[in-house]
Amino acid sequence: MIKSDEFETKMEDYNKHAILGVKQPLVLECGVSLNNFPVYYQTYGSLSEKKDNAVLVCHALSGDQFLAGVNPTTGKVGWWNLVVGPDKVIDTNRYFVICTNILGGCMGTVGPKEVNSETGEIWGSNFPMITIQDMVKAQALLIDHLDIDKLFCVIGGSMGGMQVLEWAATYPDRVLTAVPIAAAAQHSAQNIAFHEVGRQAIMADPNWCGGNYYASDIFPDRGLAIARMVAHITYLSEPSLQTKFGRRLQDRESITFGFDADFQVESYLRHQGSTFVDRFDANSYLYITRAMDYFDLSERFDGGLAEAFRGSKTRFCVISFSSDWLYPTSESRMVVHALNSVAASVSFAEIRSDKGHDSFLLDEPEFWRVLRGFLSGSADYFGLDEFSCKGEEG
Amino acid sequence: MIKSDEFETKMEDYNKHAILGVKQPLVLECGVSLNNFPVYYQTYGSLSEKKDNAVLVCHALSGDQFLAGVNPTTGKVGWWNLVVGPDKVIDTNRYFVICTNILGGCMGTVGPKEVNSETGEIWGSNFPMITIQDMVKAQALLIDHLDIDKLFCVIGGSMGGMQVLEWAATYPDRVLTAVPIAAAAQHSAQNIAFHEVGRQAIMADPNWCGGNYYASDIFPDRGLAIARMVAHITYLSEPSLQTKFGRRLQDRESITFGFDADFQVESYLRHQGSTFVDRFDANSYLYITRAMDYFDLSERFDGGLAEAFRGSKTRFCVISFSSDWLYPTSESRMVVHALNSVAASVSFAEIRSDKGHDSFLLDEPEFWRVLRGFLSGSADYFGLDEFSCKGEEG
Repeated sequence: MIKSDEFETKMEDYNKHAILGVKQPLVLECGVSLNNFPVYYQTYGSLSEKKDNAVLVCHALSGDQFLAGVNPTTGKVGWWNLVVGPDKVIDTNRYFVICTNILGGCMGTVGPKEVNSETGEIWGSNFPMITIQDMVKAQALLIDHLDIDKLFCVIGGSMGGMQVLEWAATYPDRVLTAVPIAAAAQHSAQNIAFHEVGRQAIMADPNWCGGNYYASDIFPDRGLAIARMVAHITYLSEPSLQTKFGRRLQDRESITFGFDADFQVESYLRHQGSTFVDRFDANSYLYITRAMDYFDLSERFDGGLAEAFRGSKTRFCVISFSSDWLYPTSESRMVVHALNSVAASVSFAEIRSDKGHDSFLLDEPEFWRVLRGFLSGSADYFGLDEFSCKGEEG
Repeated sequence: MIKSDEFETKMEDYNKHAILGVKQPLVLECGVSLNNFPVYYQTYGSLSEKKDNAVLVCHALSGDQFLAGVNPTTGKVGWWNLVVGPDKVIDTNRYFVICTNILGGCMGTVGPKEVNSETGEIWGSNFPMITIQDMVKAQALLIDHLDIDKLFCVIGGSMGGMQVLEWAATYPDRVLTAVPIAAAAQHSAQNIAFHEVGRQAIMADPNWCGGNYYASDIFPDRGLAIARMVAHITYLSEPSLQTKFGRRLQDRESITFGFDADFQVESYLRHQGSTFVDRFDANSYLYITRAMDYFDLSERFDGGLAEAFRGSKTRFCVISFSSDWLYPTSESRMVVHALNSVAASVSFAEIRSDKGHDSFLLDEPEFWRVLRGFLSGSADYFGLDEFSCKGEEG
């Protein structure tokens, strides 16, 4: 058995990227064209000779390309290390896993903190607004660059799931299976509302400076931390917060009658906020949340969401979590109903879990069983060799 | 019939208050003593000769003493004008309604923006931390001042409901009936978490200046507005936000690919934030949210919540709303179970409503029917004259 520390990402891996939009620019939904822009990515496992075992994992708002092994920038294990690896649910002995830092991100791929190749200056607030479709089109350019025609699977949770739905709608012939997890085909009013609070917190920070803060060494950390704190509440269910923290005090016997973090839950949130600013860019947070707010797959199609998938041969597996109140099961069910109404191939599982939206990142054996079963069944269906890459790696 | 505009509060009413803690100071839970402090209040209707028809209404976090008629500071109708008035559910032809601005508030009653009578300086961050019990003790001093022995009813929603529970626990012999609405006997981890985000937003505002901003003309408005925005999301249910706003755009045909308030829900939240800062003090917001976080009625009693009510002769009517996710029905049920376990007199109603926590402020006929029935039945039970004040007013 190959051990998971095979994925101890080295610092040189940090620079793994492709320059895209070279021959032809990427024309964004807002109308701006991007030329010669980097997309950073990581791969895990090996591409089979038939190039039929590629799994594109799409990351969520605060994720990045370092999904397995050790993330060289944080020193911690990747955000989906529980799921992706040798003999794991997404088995890198079998699948070639690709994960790109999204367009607008802050881990190398072009975004507000990167240099505009045309002007030589940092984009800052001049970075064009991006959408989920733009992210997906940039990923498609990378998949072209890797000379892969069809993806065995496109999978992701939360905003990653939005990208999955967008892939299936925009490139139906390139996606054999699609697994949107804890996602939605459109952002609800409540989703937009929480994002707007986070954006206002960032833009209220005097260090934000209209988004052009890179020249200084002072960043809008407090605003970004507050945005992260409020978002983090939405990632957990109320019962999980109660079980994890309840009203327990942090390193003290009694309340202090003041505004310190008396309660563990306060201390935890402050920690989530302060560690986030070490690894994330405030402008990226603005742009990415806006892309999510703008996401409404049904809007582009006369006749609504079902039309996005009419004629699709993609096999879908839609997964939700019972205690997810950010993208509740009802949102997944709307996707399933749309798929059913055009006779698409769709499996649907609502996983019983009390861990809330973040369940897809956590130890959830039932979720893993469903996912393993779907991937394995689909691999058989599409005739993937059982261990197409074993020879190269074993 | 007496018309509701009888309650057109005049500017002179704004100054209706009593100076309390004169003979004996109010000793707060934190240990600090308050002397000679004002409590501002309003009354509606007339006190009966037997002084048996007083209803104390306790206001919520952002409420004030102007519950009916026109609020002279905002020019808008009071926050419970739908419920309190002649021939309304809390009928001012029958009941003498009292509402005090709470301790720590910013509508006259002593709080961080008021002058410390001992130093002659504005309290600011030197204001002592207050608790729900402190608020209730200050109200009890006012009730003494009004020479009322027993209250026919103590009623309130949200934090007002916490005060109701505290009244019933602290002064069981002075409360004939108690109606906690959309409330809880303790603040949950999620409740604390949302409040902590709001506080961090205020304290991150450079205009907050450690809480001592009164000398300048510049207030921490942006921080307070963000705190209000995030809180406001929790006051509405997800379906009500979706029905009210959905993804509808604000005064535009299409998205602008920018950070303006493209969506109605963003515009609405920004409006909620910006109007709130005109009428509320940022420090009061900090102190009051902290008082709510500290509230845990069961903690003070060996054996838990039930002991808070053992031997109580108060008649309780506990009311919750099905779509309230801030203080969900499960929290009210815990109160009901505690009351049942000590054989207290308790009615319980979960009102079906899709309007979320704020339902108690809104047009909810079923809620009103339950409340009217309970008050009327209790008035009969306790032998109130049917129209005890009619002679004075009619």
